[in-house]
Amino acid sequence: MHAEVLIKKFGAEYGDEIELLSEKNYTGILMPSHNDIITLKLKNGYNIGVKIDEKSKIRVIKKKQEKTGMLRNIKHLKGKPVISLISTGGTIASYVDYRTGAVHPALTAEDITFSVPELTEKYNVKAKVLFSILSEDMKAGHWRKLAKETAKELNSGADAVVIPHGTDTMAYTSAALSFMLKNLTGPVILVGSQRSSDRPSSDASMNLLSAAKLSETDLGEVVVVMHGESSDTYSLIHRGTRVRKMHTSKRDAFKTINGKPIGRIDNEVKFFQDYRKKSSDKTVVNDKIEEKVALIYFYPGLTPEFFDYTVKNNKGVVIAGTGLGHVSSDLIEIIRNAKIPIIMSSQCLNGRVNMNVYSTGRDLLSAGVIPGEDMLPETALVKLMYVLGQTKKMEEIRKMMTQNMVGEINSRTMVDMKGRMQTVG
Amino acid sequence: MHAEVLIKKFGAEYGDEIELLSEKNYTGILMPSHNDIITLKLKNGYNIGVKIDEKSKIRVIKKKQEKTGMLRNIKHLKGKPVISLISTGGTIASYVDYRTGAVHPALTAEDITFSVPELTEKYNVKAKVLFSILSEDMKAGHWRKLAKETAKELNSGADAVVIPHGTDTMAYTSAALSFMLKNLTGPVILVGSQRSSDRPSSDASMNLLSAAKLSETDLGEVVVVMHGESSDTYSLIHRGTRVRKMHTSKRDAFKTINGKPIGRIDNEVKFFQDYRKKSSDKTVVNDKIEEKVALIYFYPGLTPEFFDYTVKNNKGVVIAGTGLGHVSSDLIEIIRNAKIPIIMSSQCLNGRVNMNVYSTGRDLLSAGVIPGEDMLPETALVKLMYVLGQTKKMEEIRKMMTQNMVGEINSRTMVDMKGRMQTVG
Repeated sequence: MHAEVLIKKFGAEYGDEIELLSEKNYTGILMPSHNDIITLKLKNGYNIGVKIDEKSKIRVIKKKQEKTGMLRNIKHLKGKPVISLISTGGTIASYVDYRTGAVHPALTAEDITFSVPELTEKYNVKAKVLFSILSEDMKAGHWRKLAKETAKELNSGADAVVIPHGTDTMAYTSAALSFMLKNLTGPVILVGSQRSSDRPSSDASMNLLSAAKLSETDLGEVVVVMHGESSDTYSLIHRGTRVRKMHTSKRDAFKTINGKPIGRIDNEVKFFQDYRKKSSDKTVVNDKIEEKVALIYFYPGLTPEFFDYTVKNNKGVVIAGTGLGHVSSDLIEIIRNAKIPIIMSSQCLNGRVNMNVYSTGRDLLSAGVIPGEDMLPETALVKLMYVLGQTKKMEEIRKMMTQNMVGEINSRTMVDMKGRMQTVG
Repeated sequence: MHAEVLIKKFGAEYGDEIELLSEKNYTGILMPSHNDIITLKLKNGYNIGVKIDEKSKIRVIKKKQEKTGMLRNIKHLKGKPVISLISTGGTIASYVDYRTGAVHPALTAEDITFSVPELTEKYNVKAKVLFSILSEDMKAGHWRKLAKETAKELNSGADAVVIPHGTDTMAYTSAALSFMLKNLTGPVILVGSQRSSDRPSSDASMNLLSAAKLSETDLGEVVVVMHGESSDTYSLIHRGTRVRKMHTSKRDAFKTINGKPIGRIDNEVKFFQDYRKKSSDKTVVNDKIEEKVALIYFYPGLTPEFFDYTVKNNKGVVIAGTGLGHVSSDLIEIIRNAKIPIIMSSQCLNGRVNMNVYSTGRDLLSAGVIPGEDMLPETALVKLMYVLGQTKKMEEIRKMMTQNMVGEINSRTMVDMKGRMQTVG
């Protein structure tokens, strides 16, 4: 027996308080349920998944109140911001299969916002499931669709676009949208969760509400909003081209690298630094990107043959070299003969490449490597994909890759005497 | 005119106070000099490089004092530890070419210890230049030679082996030595510098002295000793299998990942946690390693063709997957068909892979991926090279890769409620 069938049969709706009469009886709020499992939120806050069969019954104790209503029932709240929620999948929009314990992406917009009724109380929310995939399956084609959909929403009146996204590749997508969208008429906020939203410890709710709050500001950038620390105290606003997932499981896994976050959100939004203001123009999409670009982290033993294969089978290569931007000297000749742009970033992640200090760096420069400045390797990858969509001329590529476009390059990073990083100019 | 020729002609020695009579005249301590440049340490602490020609002259003002003597003149200091210094190159053992401003590896043991006379005052130092390369050119063959040389020194009476090494790949070498050396009869300390030793701001001196101090302890592990913060206050002792260079240029670039450092060194050595004690047995080398192992950082757009090529051309592959250990689902079939071990680590670097949470992870496990637990991707690479040197049997490989050998795997990493990481069991 499928959960949806049972729910329909007994006239229940998600949000209703029900009694489930199965092998054992349970009372709780009916949550989005899938397959042959009914999910209930118990009084103690925990969710439970109960396997049902032909004999299972549901008794509705109390209909859900309208204020926790589904998205399809939203009324227009006068004077409140309009938020477009474009869901792509990921933990923030996922549910636990209680038979296997594994997490699957959710399928409907209702699934996503269901556990955050505050969202529909404070904002005019339009929701849409654009994809329903785990973010490790995101590719350039998804970025294109998402960029177009985001621009469409901004250009048809949304004050902000909130994009629930799997955390695994969220930073790659945020970089891609940063390069592909211009003249943003409102903030574009990628938001994720490290714990799925039907768990009591989920960070989905706070991150979604924090993201929505940016609709009340004049921010006009692509950002990632995630927990600032492990407890539910505040979220941080990370620039889309500077953020990286730095922990497999902690809620404050996302860090701004080579800079500080743009700001923080708790009861109010506080900006730490300058940011691009929203445009009064029209949001423009440039979705031309070259997909055949590779990212290679150098390691001792990486063979010239392997590197040569990579160069020959791509239109561009980003190397995450060692230290200030180095690779073993047996790769330099391949770089010299390459007909494609090769960008150098650092696997240290923090700091800036500088290829004028050591002989290897100088040899690499003279072989034609383009220094990636203080860009993250992952950002350099996405930027090169974008740049190769715009031009095939090597000198233009070099210029675009070494100049800041959307905050991905600091013009100069200085470390002061106490080791604090300062961004100058 | 070559510097060495001029120095010899006027009977000067490194360490002497001299006056250099060239186009302009300079007074200072004669430093190791190369090509046609004489390097002087001026009274203000700065080094200067002066181009010489046929007309240049040297006047010795004051012969160097014996206590700042060269390594070849060392007398045995009774009751003091014996330290073997095996230099491999890198910034710590490098000099600046004052014509180009580029840094080159030094060529002699004298070059290395010259600027740290305190070393020869406190310890019985044996020095040797094993290689003179920048560390990006280190390969498995170098690791083998270095492991054998290190064991030889420990087994012939050295209380500690100190290995000056380029910082770029120092963490790979420290992991390699950690796996290849057993029953250490003393500490093996890799030490580097982020600023070359003939600059006033160099960290070489403090790091070398800190490393040497470990000869007075009962530590029997391979460790990395580098600055704990940007100023010259203390050095940290990092376990060889847990350390990563996390900044391109800061002096405190090295961080212990997924744990805390073993201890710190200032005037004394303070241990923060348990460590392996030195063995009273004999140090043993196992230098069998398989070189054909690749490390791949996954990114959106990594093609099945590229991954297939990598799998087909190697004896083992380590993936730095996203998040808890994922790749796009179009790679899973290649993994299922692979005849070689494929290890999953995380590009988040911090935290542990867990492939039981999401459907992709479960699919990867069922396809045969071996979870790399909380090992760094780089450590997993080196460990797989070592393990494949020991056995070709898949079940043995799996067992060895998932069990802790030398501190590279914590049996369980917990994040407590405040987000502090705890290592349990």
